[in-house]
Amino acid sequence: MSLVLPHQRNSWKQLQRLADQGVPHLRELLSDESRSATLQREAAGLYLDFSRQSLTPEVLEGLLALADEAGVLDHAQAMARGEPINATEHRAVLHMALRGSHWADAPWGGAVNAQVNDVLNRFCAFADALHQGRWNGHTGEAITDVVNIGIGGSDLGPRMAVQALDHLAGPHVRVHFVSNPDAWALHALLRGLKPARTLFIVASKTFTTQETMTIAASARRWLLDGGVPEPKLNRHLAAVSAAPDKAAQLGVAPEQVFGFWDWVGGRYSVWSAVGLPLAVHMGSAAFKDFLAGAHAMDRHFLSSDVRENLPLLLALFTVWNRNFLGSPTQLISCYPTRLALFASFIQQMDMESLGKRTHTDGSAVQIGTGAIVWGGLGIDAQHAYFQLLHQGTHRVPVDFIGVRNERTPLSMADQHHHVVNLNLRAQSQALALGRSADDTARMLRDSGMSESEVQRLTPHRSFAGNVPNQVLWMDDITPQTLGALIALYEHKVFCLGALWGIHAYDQWGVELGKTMAKDMEAQGH
Amino acid sequence: MSLVLPHQRNSWKQLQRLADQGVPHLRELLSDESRSATLQREAAGLYLDFSRQSLTPEVLEGLLALADEAGVLDHAQAMARGEPINATEHRAVLHMALRGSHWADAPWGGAVNAQVNDVLNRFCAFADALHQGRWNGHTGEAITDVVNIGIGGSDLGPRMAVQALDHLAGPHVRVHFVSNPDAWALHALLRGLKPARTLFIVASKTFTTQETMTIAASARRWLLDGGVPEPKLNRHLAAVSAAPDKAAQLGVAPEQVFGFWDWVGGRYSVWSAVGLPLAVHMGSAAFKDFLAGAHAMDRHFLSSDVRENLPLLLALFTVWNRNFLGSPTQLISCYPTRLALFASFIQQMDMESLGKRTHTDGSAVQIGTGAIVWGGLGIDAQHAYFQLLHQGTHRVPVDFIGVRNERTPLSMADQHHHVVNLNLRAQSQALALGRSADDTARMLRDSGMSESEVQRLTPHRSFAGNVPNQVLWMDDITPQTLGALIALYEHKVFCLGALWGIHAYDQWGVELGKTMAKDMEAQGH
Repeated sequence: MSLVLPHQRNSWKQLQRLADQGVPHLRELLSDESRSATLQREAAGLYLDFSRQSLTPEVLEGLLALADEAGVLDHAQAMARGEPINATEHRAVLHMALRGSHWADAPWGGAVNAQVNDVLNRFCAFADALHQGRWNGHTGEAITDVVNIGIGGSDLGPRMAVQALDHLAGPHVRVHFVSNPDAWALHALLRGLKPARTLFIVASKTFTTQETMTIAASARRWLLDGGVPEPKLNRHLAAVSAAPDKAAQLGVAPEQVFGFWDWVGGRYSVWSAVGLPLAVHMGSAAFKDFLAGAHAMDRHFLSSDVRENLPLLLALFTVWNRNFLGSPTQLISCYPTRLALFASFIQQMDMESLGKRTHTDGSAVQIGTGAIVWGGLGIDAQHAYFQLLHQGTHRVPVDFIGVRNERTPLSMADQHHHVVNLNLRAQSQALALGRSADDTARMLRDSGMSESEVQRLTPHRSFAGNVPNQVLWMDDITPQTLGALIALYEHKVFCLGALWGIHAYDQWGVELGKTMAKDMEAQGH
Repeated sequence: MSLVLPHQRNSWKQLQRLADQGVPHLRELLSDESRSATLQREAAGLYLDFSRQSLTPEVLEGLLALADEAGVLDHAQAMARGEPINATEHRAVLHMALRGSHWADAPWGGAVNAQVNDVLNRFCAFADALHQGRWNGHTGEAITDVVNIGIGGSDLGPRMAVQALDHLAGPHVRVHFVSNPDAWALHALLRGLKPARTLFIVASKTFTTQETMTIAASARRWLLDGGVPEPKLNRHLAAVSAAPDKAAQLGVAPEQVFGFWDWVGGRYSVWSAVGLPLAVHMGSAAFKDFLAGAHAMDRHFLSSDVRENLPLLLALFTVWNRNFLGSPTQLISCYPTRLALFASFIQQMDMESLGKRTHTDGSAVQIGTGAIVWGGLGIDAQHAYFQLLHQGTHRVPVDFIGVRNERTPLSMADQHHHVVNLNLRAQSQALALGRSADDTARMLRDSGMSESEVQRLTPHRSFAGNVPNQVLWMDDITPQTLGALIALYEHKVFCLGALWGIHAYDQWGVELGKTMAKDMEAQGH
């Protein structure tokens, strides 16, 4: 494997020269009035404003050259063709096929599409029966509560999406999630539910994950203790797994076991049967819209030039911030409250994929790879950790995510919305511009403060600014835009793997803890 | 102000020499069997195991010398005496008084105690009326749902504590929180509530926070639209504020306005009337136990020697990891699911306090100050971002938090608990030890893999380890232990402020965003 290491590339060296020369303060860059109009891109219903990234036209050209030199978009074609790019596990990486199964000329071929459609049709039919209140429990009463049991990739995707699309909940069934094996998590949910009206989905790729199996066994026991006869358990259980034979052992009827494939990574699996809770929540038609939104982003990613390619641009900005401006972390700050779990979801996707220190050729990395991704809801964060962004000793790049329209059925919704987006714009600007000591002293003086107090307080009340950030806008949160947004970040992660020359689709670090736990258990801990 | 800067101290220079010499790998340090027994401390029902911090006896001595040289514990006495250590705002910092108001010899004096007791008694009486189902709405029906409206320090403390003490919920009333002004947050809650049975607590230190005032106005409108006559609004509203006059303007009866003082920082205010939702949730007796737990930690902090002082030790380990081992972030990983918000709460407290780049004397810091604090629930994280801790290019110190006993009323609770704590111990050990290339190659060979595959995969499946971490255990989550745990981190933050020579009790960075938003609004955005 003759990998050219990232920092050996000419374009990388050129970027290093540009970084060494220094980039003007964002205050200066933003004084160019044409900047904002130039540094905007759009794809699949998402609008990116990257005018507050700390980059000059030369840096942008350098980054695009890096993308070309690394052949990122050629690698993307290889992924789409089903080549085994997950080489430590000898597997293809085909989550795009899960949302492109109606694509006649799909690069992964018709055989994959047929497999995908078969399972998709099966789990959508099951989801609709639940969504429409047509699935009955052992007494003949309809199921009203569906509980997904899964952890990591079998939890966070559908959990995040169900919350994001809260407004599409149907009237017949509520969807819940239990991931943590602490008994209180299951107890706190089950105390409000009735066994006769509850159905559990047990989601586990391997069906051996100890955490999930513990919760599943406990849920099964609760059903039995609550009067569900063992032969009728199948009215209350479904399973999602790449090991369907193991699911049958739990008492799940084969027609309620929905499979997926080893070419779907857990953290990329919300499009597969792992998305069943989401399909139950909003019905299969909306679920297919969700797939269509992601597919639109896939088509954009596979067909656009480097200059217009939204996922690739996001990846390049991360390389610039991480490897050349030296920021070890990346904040994701969402302003719509329904996106409360989006940052956690991307945190998992990004860090589990890119938290690697070995290049694909087996050599140890000499550069920083995956950033520490953190965040949550922006406006709450303004009253919490944003203090550190403004005045701490770190430089934290920020992805702001906002929604343009407001459709909440609440009398004063428009006033709410005004406050939310005003704050988003103000933070983006405040982080970029800061406030100089001169401006601060002037402000304090204007407030009538004594000169000695002005002198004493000015250093504490000035702001360096120059924090790189970008804003992603969508018109509304819909199944389509949410699908596109997730796919955008998925492809961004792919591009980073290619740019850094690391494997983004294995996760051996998750294994070590499991092995150690097993060993400790064997030693009687 | 003649501040000795941290890096000018002799003990700091000595620590730098020790860091430059390098610390042996944790694998080597932990091979000393006496280590684990020596590096344990206990206070106020909390047990700290710091045997997996990356430190030698010489480093520990150096850190203790730094604490002495910086006079950290003398500063703590000054805080307790009510000196204006929040010097940019000319304020004392007395959250300890909120939980020590029955302390006859309290260093802050009897006048403060009398003020505190007066408000404490008033809001506890109101809380008990709600908790016991004795507070009626305008129709005479009892209030069943209490909604706290507040953001940042007026939200996260009580929200976190109500979740942590979920098992103490009374039968009469449910407590909810709305912080985010996105209309969907309020709508999603109110769609399930009845105006006649709902009471809102509006919590804002200044009562001018735009976010909170927007939600409060919207809630008031919902009450009126829902049939509550304006003269009866006072049955459905209460307020918590350091500006009680402004609360009256919203229509809150004066006897339902609970004050606090400018010497209470928002992020340290859960002990004040800001804790009202927590007192409603579990009753005033349990709330006083919560105060007592924090007070026990205060007494420990104010009276213990540096060697035994738990908050100070935590701060010193952070200084070591942050300033000498170069870790910009700190992970908090809780294993009990009821502590799901604890990491967010500490994130706010720590980063808003310590995210500063100016020393108290006005000079610019030359050292790293507040870390980026992030985290959540440990066992979910194992299936998400722990991958990066094991194999990424960062070194992330971890605080593990666990509970020894299990009292969930669920048949299989013991099996759940076994899995949870087994995983906590396994991760702590796995991060410290890692797995060497030799051990990895042997394991792969033993699994029957071909030698060429062993060679190819070993670098991808080895783990460097040497990730510093510590475990905090408590026997149970009770009001007392939770109070002690919060106070532990509060005092840790105080110590870091003193060690770094920065102001930990202002938050000017929060102001800039507000000013910018106001300016943008004035410009018609």
